Amino acid sequence: MSVQIEDSEVDIVIAALHPNLTPFLEAWRPFFSRFHIIVVKDPELDSELQIAPGFDLKIYTKSDIEAVAKSSSINFSGHSCRYFGYLVSRKKYVISIDQDSLPAKDPSGLVTDAVAQHITNLATPATPFFFNTLYDPFRPGADFVRGYPFSMRCGVPCVLSCGLWLNVADYDALTQSVKPNERNTRYVDAVMTVPVGAMMPTSGINIAFDRLALGPALLPGVHFTGEGKRRWETLEDIWSGLCAKVVSDHLGFGVKTGLPYVHREGDGTKPHGSLNKESEKVKLLDDALPFFQSVKISRNATSAIDCVAELSGMVREKLGAVSPVFGSAANAMDEWVNLWKSVGAQAE
Amino acid sequence: MSVQIEDSEVDIVIAALHPNLTPFLEAWRPFFSRFHIIVVKDPELDSELQIAPGFDLKIYTKSDIEAVAKSSSINFSGHSCRYFGYLVSRKKYVISIDQDSLPAKDPSGLVTDAVAQHITNLATPATPFFFNTLYDPFRPGADFVRGYPFSMRCGVPCVLSCGLWLNVADYDALTQSVKPNERNTRYVDAVMTVPVGAMMPTSGINIAFDRLALGPALLPGVHFTGEGKRRWETLEDIWSGLCAKVVSDHLGFGVKTGLPYVHREGDGTKPHGSLNKESEKVKLLDDALPFFQSVKISRNATSAIDCVAELSGMVREKLGAVSPVFGSAANAMDEWVNLWKSVGAQAE
Repeated sequence: MSVQIEDSEVDIVIAALHPNLTPFLEAWRPFFSRFHIIVVKDPELDSELQIAPGFDLKIYTKSDIEAVAKSSSINFSGHSCRYFGYLVSRKKYVISIDQDSLPAKDPSGLVTDAVAQHITNLATPATPFFFNTLYDPFRPGADFVRGYPFSMRCGVPCVLSCGLWLNVADYDALTQSVKPNERNTRYVDAVMTVPVGAMMPTSGINIAFDRLALGPALLPGVHFTGEGKRRWETLEDIWSGLCAKVVSDHLGFGVKTGLPYVHREGDGTKPHGSLNKESEKVKLLDDALPFFQSVKISRNATSAIDCVAELSGMVREKLGAVSPVFGSAANAMDEWVNLWKSVGAQAE
Repeated sequence: MSVQIEDSEVDIVIAALHPNLTPFLEAWRPFFSRFHIIVVKDPELDSELQIAPGFDLKIYTKSDIEAVAKSSSINFSGHSCRYFGYLVSRKKYVISIDQDSLPAKDPSGLVTDAVAQHITNLATPATPFFFNTLYDPFRPGADFVRGYPFSMRCGVPCVLSCGLWLNVADYDALTQSVKPNERNTRYVDAVMTVPVGAMMPTSGINIAFDRLALGPALLPGVHFTGEGKRRWETLEDIWSGLCAKVVSDHLGFGVKTGLPYVHREGDGTKPHGSLNKESEKVKLLDDALPFFQSVKISRNATSAIDCVAELSGMVREKLGAVSPVFGSAANAMDEWVNLWKSVGAQAE
C-alpha cells in the first residue's frame, strides 16, 4: 500500500508574513533545495521580500491573488495567504511550514529533515480504524501489536500529515497569556494515525497533505477581521483542520500526527490585544464543535471538492444562526469550491 | 479533576506462571515494596512458589480459586489466573505486570518507576472526546494545544492505563513466526488518551485500572483450550480490552496508552505450535471486531457490572453463531458478573 513520492510531485508552500525570508530559507536549504517552492506574500505586507538565491522558487503577491480571486470575498491576508499557494500549486503533494519555524534537532542533537518525514508519513498507509498502541506500524522496527485485526493491516492512504513543534508553544491567546514563557522541550519520537471520528486541533505551523485527494478541504474559512498575523489569535487553521478531518474520515482516508518537529521561534510574547475578544472567539469554536463531531456527509460526495461543497451548506444551515462568522465561513467555502474547480483542480 | 491516590488504595496483582518469583520481585522491590501485592498461582502450576521475603504479599492458589469459583466454568489457567486477583482485591486500583517483565530504562539510562507512572495516569484526567496533538495535557510543561475546545479541558476520569514494553515485542503467533528476533527499542516519551469510539489492542503485560469503576470489565472471556501460557497465543487480554474500552466509552470514562514501559524478557522464541490453529484464532478476532465497533450499550446500564451483563447477552446473540468460542465467552462473562457481584464488589 505504500506509494513512491518523487521530488517533482511536491510543492513547498511558504506564507511570507515578514519581508526577510533569507534566514528561513538558508536554515532549510539542505532540505528544501531539491523541491519547487511557492512563496505567497501576505497581501497586507508592503515591503519588498528578501529571498536567498539558489532555490527553484515562485513568488505570488497581492496582484496575483487579485487576478485569480478578484471576485472572491475570501480573506487571504496573514497566515491565510498560504491557501492561495495551495490553490495555484500544480503538484500532487504540498508541504507548508511557518516562516518562524526552523529545522528541529532530535534528542541526540542531530538536525532532522521535516520534509523527508512528511513525505514518509504521506507515502506509508494510515490506520484510522483501529489504534495501534506501539504507534506507526509501518516504521522500520515496528509492526502491528498482537490483537490488531489482520483485516485492517493494509491501512488506507494517508492524506494529511500534521507535524509538531519544539520551543515556543502553540497556544491560544488565553493560555499564552497565562503561560507566556512555557516552552515545549519534549521530543516524542512517534507518528500515529488519529482514529476515524476523533477531532483534533490541526496547527498550520507544519503540515503536509495530498493536494489531489484532500486539497480542497484545506481551506480559508473562518477569518476574523484584523487577525491572522499571529498564531495565537488565529482560528483559520483550526477550522480548516476540522473540515479536513471530517472530509478525510468520510472519504476513508487517514490523518497522521507526530513527527516531524520544527523548532518554532514563534511569537512567544504575551498577547496585548483584547482577551475578551479572544475569549469570544474561543467560545465560538466551542459552539461549532458539536457540528463537526456529528456532521454526516452524504454518500453522493465522493471527492474532497464534493464534500466541501456539501459541508458549506450544512455550516450555513446549522451554524449560520450562531454567529455571522459562520455564515461568512460558509460563503468563503463556496467561493473556495468555485476557485478550486477553476484554478486548483488543474494538475501537471 | 485530578485525584489523590494513596498507596493503601492500590493492589499489585501478579500472575505466577513460573515458580520462581524472586528475581522478578527483587527487580521491582524499589517500586513494589510500598504496596500490597496479590500473587495468583496458575492453577496448572504444580511446583512450590519461591517468593523473595519482605513484601506485603498474599498468595492465592488453585484451592482458593476452587473455593470461590467452584461452580464456575471460567478458565483461570495461565495468564487468566490474574483475573482471580482482580476479583479478590479489595482496593480501588489494581496494577498488573507480567512475570517476565522488569523495570525499563529511559533513554538516559535511568530505571523508570512503572507503578508511579500508572498511578499518575489514573490520577489525572483523560481526554477522550478531542485529540490533543501534544499528547497528555496534564503533564508538567504541557497543556492543551490552540484549538482544543475549552469546554472539554477538564477531561473525564481515567479508568484504564495501558503501559507498553521494550525489548521483546508483543506480537501474535503469526507475526512472531515471521519476526522472532524483532525487538522494540524505541522509548516514546508520551501518554495519550485513546479517543472515544476507537478500539485498540490492549495487552495485559502492563496495565492498571480503577477496579471500582471498571473492574468488572477486565474479565476472563475468550480462552482457548490449552492456551494462555504464552502471550503470542493469548486472546484473553485482547477480548478483555475490547470489552473494557466499550464499557469505558459508554460510561464516559477515558483510557490512556503510552508510558510506563516495562522491559520484557518474554517468550521471544518462534512459536512451535500449529500456525493453522493460530490463524483460525486471528480470523475469529477479525470476525468479532465489527461487533465491538458497533455495539451500543443501553442507557439503563450505568455501571461496569451492568454493562458487562448486557454485553454478554449481545455477544451470545450476535456472535454465538459465528463460533462456539463466543458462546463460551458469553457464558464466562455471565458467570463473571455473578462472581463479581458476590465477591468482587466488596471493598475495604
